[in-house]
Amino acid sequence: MKIQEGSYVLLFHTSRKKWLTKVTPDKKIHTHLGIIDVGATIGMEYGSVIRTTEGKVVFLIEPTTHDFIMKSERRTQIVYPKDLGFIAARTGMKNGSKILEIGTGSAAAATFFASIVKPEGHIYSFDVNPDFMEIAKRNLEKAGMADYVTLNHHDPHEGVDVREADIAIVDLGDPWTVLDQVHDALKGSGAFVAICPTMNQIEKTATELKKSGYADIESIELLIRTMEAREGMTRPSMRMIGHTTYLVFARKVQKKAEAPSEEPEEEGEEGIE
Amino acid sequence: MKIQEGSYVLLFHTSRKKWLTKVTPDKKIHTHLGIIDVGATIGMEYGSVIRTTEGKVVFLIEPTTHDFIMKSERRTQIVYPKDLGFIAARTGMKNGSKILEIGTGSAAAATFFASIVKPEGHIYSFDVNPDFMEIAKRNLEKAGMADYVTLNHHDPHEGVDVREADIAIVDLGDPWTVLDQVHDALKGSGAFVAICPTMNQIEKTATELKKSGYADIESIELLIRTMEAREGMTRPSMRMIGHTTYLVFARKVQKKAEAPSEEPEEEGEEGIE
Amino acid sequence: MKIQEGSYVLLFHTSRKKWLTKVTPDKKIHTHLGIIDVGATIGMEYGSVIRTTEGKVVFLIEPTTHDFIMKSERRTQIVYPKDLGFIAARTGMKNGSKILEIGTGSAAAATFFASIVKPEGHIYSFDVNPDFMEIAKRNLEKAGMADYVTLNHHDPHEGVDVREADIAIVDLGDPWTVLDQVHDALKGSGAFVAICPTMNQIEKTATELKKSGYADIESIELLIRTMEAREGMTRPSMRMIGHTTYLVFARKVQKKAEAPSEEPEEEGEEGIE
Amino acid sequence: MKIQEGSYVLLFHTSRKKWLTKVTPDKKIHTHLGIIDVGATIGMEYGSVIRTTEGKVVFLIEPTTHDFIMKSERRTQIVYPKDLGFIAARTGMKNGSKILEIGTGSAAAATFFASIVKPEGHIYSFDVNPDFMEIAKRNLEKAGMADYVTLNHHDPHEGVDVREADIAIVDLGDPWTVLDQVHDALKGSGAFVAICPTMNQIEKTATELKKSGYADIESIELLIRTMEAREGMTRPSMRMIGHTTYLVFARKVQKKAEAPSEEPEEEGEEGIE
Repeated sequence: MKIQEGSYVLLFHTSRKKWLTKVTPDKKIHTHLGIIDVGATIGMEYGSVIRTTEGKVVFLIEPTTHDFIMKSERRTQIVYPKDLGFIAARTGMKNGSKILEIGTGSAAAATFFASIVKPEGHIYSFDVNPDFMEIAKRNLEKAGMADYVTLNHHDPHEGVDVREADIAIVDLGDPWTVLDQVHDALKGSGAFVAICPTMNQIEKTATELKKSGYADIESIELLIRTMEAREGMTRPSMRMIGHTTYLVFARKVQKKAEAPSEEPEEEGEEGIE
Repeated sequence: MKIQEGSYVLLFHTSRKKWLTKVTPDKKIHTHLGIIDVGATIGMEYGSVIRTTEGKVVFLIEPTTHDFIMKSERRTQIVYPKDLGFIAARTGMKNGSKILEIGTGSAAAATFFASIVKPEGHIYSFDVNPDFMEIAKRNLEKAGMADYVTLNHHDPHEGVDVREADIAIVDLGDPWTVLDQVHDALKGSGAFVAICPTMNQIEKTATELKKSGYADIESIELLIRTMEAREGMTRPSMRMIGHTTYLVFARKVQKKAEAPSEEPEEEGEEGIE
Repeated sequence: MKIQEGSYVLLFHTSRKKWLTKVTPDKKIHTHLGIIDVGATIGMEYGSVIRTTEGKVVFLIEPTTHDFIMKSERRTQIVYPKDLGFIAARTGMKNGSKILEIGTGSAAAATFFASIVKPEGHIYSFDVNPDFMEIAKRNLEKAGMADYVTLNHHDPHEGVDVREADIAIVDLGDPWTVLDQVHDALKGSGAFVAICPTMNQIEKTATELKKSGYADIESIELLIRTMEAREGMTRPSMRMIGHTTYLVFARKVQKKAEAPSEEPEEEGEEGIE
Repeated sequence: MKIQEGSYVLLFHTSRKKWLTKVTPDKKIHTHLGIIDVGATIGMEYGSVIRTTEGKVVFLIEPTTHDFIMKSERRTQIVYPKDLGFIAARTGMKNGSKILEIGTGSAAAATFFASIVKPEGHIYSFDVNPDFMEIAKRNLEKAGMADYVTLNHHDPHEGVDVREADIAIVDLGDPWTVLDQVHDALKGSGAFVAICPTMNQIEKTATELKKSGYADIESIELLIRTMEAREGMTRPSMRMIGHTTYLVFARKVQKKAEAPSEEPEEEGEEGIE
């Protein structure tokens, strides 16, 4: 595909030196690798190579949803791809899904979810903080997802006017305060997810879920490790992100039915040695 | 939504005691928790509760793509949700994506990818092993994804008749042997992913990618940890999956252009203490 | 070194098939690999090979403290070598150290610590449970460490008659209840360690330590991963122990001095991508 | 214990702001927290508090072997406490052990091992690089361990004049090149350890060990995670060391005896879901 005026391009030198920009005829980007003539990329194929004024190689990459998210404007910690991807895979999110999101933030998560469920599916997103709404809107527009996300500046504790949602994603400091509202909004056996950075949050959330008409409650954490894959000296990277968030999953079931206790984990000795 | 004859239902007691089955009027499932009268669920809402003949609680869960994958028929190790989800998030897979898959296996991955890219997007999947084709077909049909996946019993080393693919996923023992074929099939700056259980595979794949017209090469591993979230005694689970696979990512760029070396990781002392 | 009557020997076939036994002239061990003639090992060198009646190879290994610990008699979860070793390395435990242990259990930890600090150093170990005392005593005798550990059947909440200890190790469900007693027992700037399986315990312990005359408070967790190192197919093992315990470290300082807050971790974005 | 002229003291403000120094009457240390009057600590108890000229709290900590190692002079990556501690625990290192070390480096490892095995035990350490010898000597003297470590500037490939060693620790880029020399130096069933940062090294080392008269071959990796233990908001730290080294363990057995294959890991599905 050819780059056109108005297209976005990811100017990629290395994984730490890359720039996401909109292409206009006269744009030039000054970097410590030399000047990049963005206008000159018009008419070139994505995947091509240009050089800076200092002769450094720059690849013209067509930005994906991932690139837009990682380069999004933000005021708070975003939910990272490892967690976003697992939310999609674990809840069975798919084309056409109807999604309730509580806690829009900068809309990184909504951008990803919209890219999967569009065009028939939809994201209904709620946030009490009006400051985030503008940032969220800009990020969604840039990634081309604004049509599939309805932003609501509304306190979800007062209830949300969404019904029969397939999936509800809660990114609040106190997810246990909206379990009833979410229960009303979900379809029968619909999926619940809470994004919880601390162990105190998962403990409280899991405990309250049990009492509130949810089953199949599971809390997990994902760790991502980059590998230095080099001939004859392959090893994990020395630096690593130690933690982003925990995730709590559950399914809506009829209230008052008490879920059976999960079998306690066997703590026998076998295998531990 | 109401359960109908012919619907699938996940009969959920606990996370280790659950059964995925097709609903027919006379079906009864004999379990060590008592007999479950599957036929009696016709007309009930998903999310409802029934009881076994021994009075044990069973939730009626509407199966998601995730449930179909985890309960799929298989002869080989499947790619797990943590890895599938990250592939989607990292490559920017979305509604409408055109995907080349080399190594169909039991179609667990194709099922998930199809659920995202359908109905306009499509998966073109290749495998040399005819035995897997039948299993793959049955799994795709069960999950309702057969229309969005074309299965090809064909050796991809001879080239594949796919062009302008957004993403190529290679699940072979020797992914480095099909880099040229994949390069031909991908669009400019399209995404490459290899699923590699061993460190030797990521080393060889990453090394060959550098010479074959690919940039932004990154190898990672995801670890998933379940948490026992219980009031006053929250901790990680004692048992854990230690490893499933590594994943290698790259972007197609024009051949002969040599990608700049990634900056070597700083191995300074600071922070290590 | 030659095996003698009364020596211990580890009969090693593979890491999962091994037996630790005392050598007596007529002893024979019946295993599913055939019968092992233990008496016949008298006079042989450690490191030699014998065969079972079915011709299977068995190595004659001189048991180390590690082998005694892993094969010790126990009624509760023991502290594992990864954690024991880190306690020693992190506290600077060494030959001659004077150690207070609260929570003897089956004496696995005391066995290891004694092996380091003996003969001048000593372990003063307290437990309220008389049942453990007998097991602890047998395990210490078997490993040859009984002379260097004094077992006290005494409630440490009433205070302990130890002073100027270099290191105190607390393996109780509620380590925060003995912080004052331990403060009295430690020398100035002596090291404190608590063994805490849950996050709730580390939270409470760390919080109380700050108020009780301790500085340099650090909580950590160690994960051990076995690797399958095989030519051309090296990878981490599929199974892994997910969690054993957290460890909380601190140093005794004069009471009432308030330790400066540790700098909050920078939660900036850089590096996270 | 009172601080005296010539004592070492760790001036501890927070875990990132601490200084290890020798106490002399007139010494003053200028820091960005103000000036610390080191001379004024003479006669004070370890564990006491002083203040900088700007009123900042500084604790007077008696340095342990751990503190000396972490503050040691170095030109290369040192082996970290998590790995040192596990080497001690896994090999059964104890008071009196006779140890062969190949690869002295800056003697961080030798310092720790000496602190355990002294005074009857001993470390015989070999390095071909004369530059390290001086650094190693200074570090050992500072930590008070010089009498228990013999430094040999000698190429271990030519053989080492050590016999009946309990444990051999190899910290070379190519540990597989000294397996015969180490075999000669170890006692029967003595323990072998190799420190290997890359997976290529563990693969080669494990493969050669099998052919060279060693059994019970095991490769592992330790990950350390610090926890932010704070009331109501406990979670793992955001930053983490991703990798330091792998460790390969084995026991010397008689040559030509072929060790039985370890049972291949069961790769069944159960439990993986």
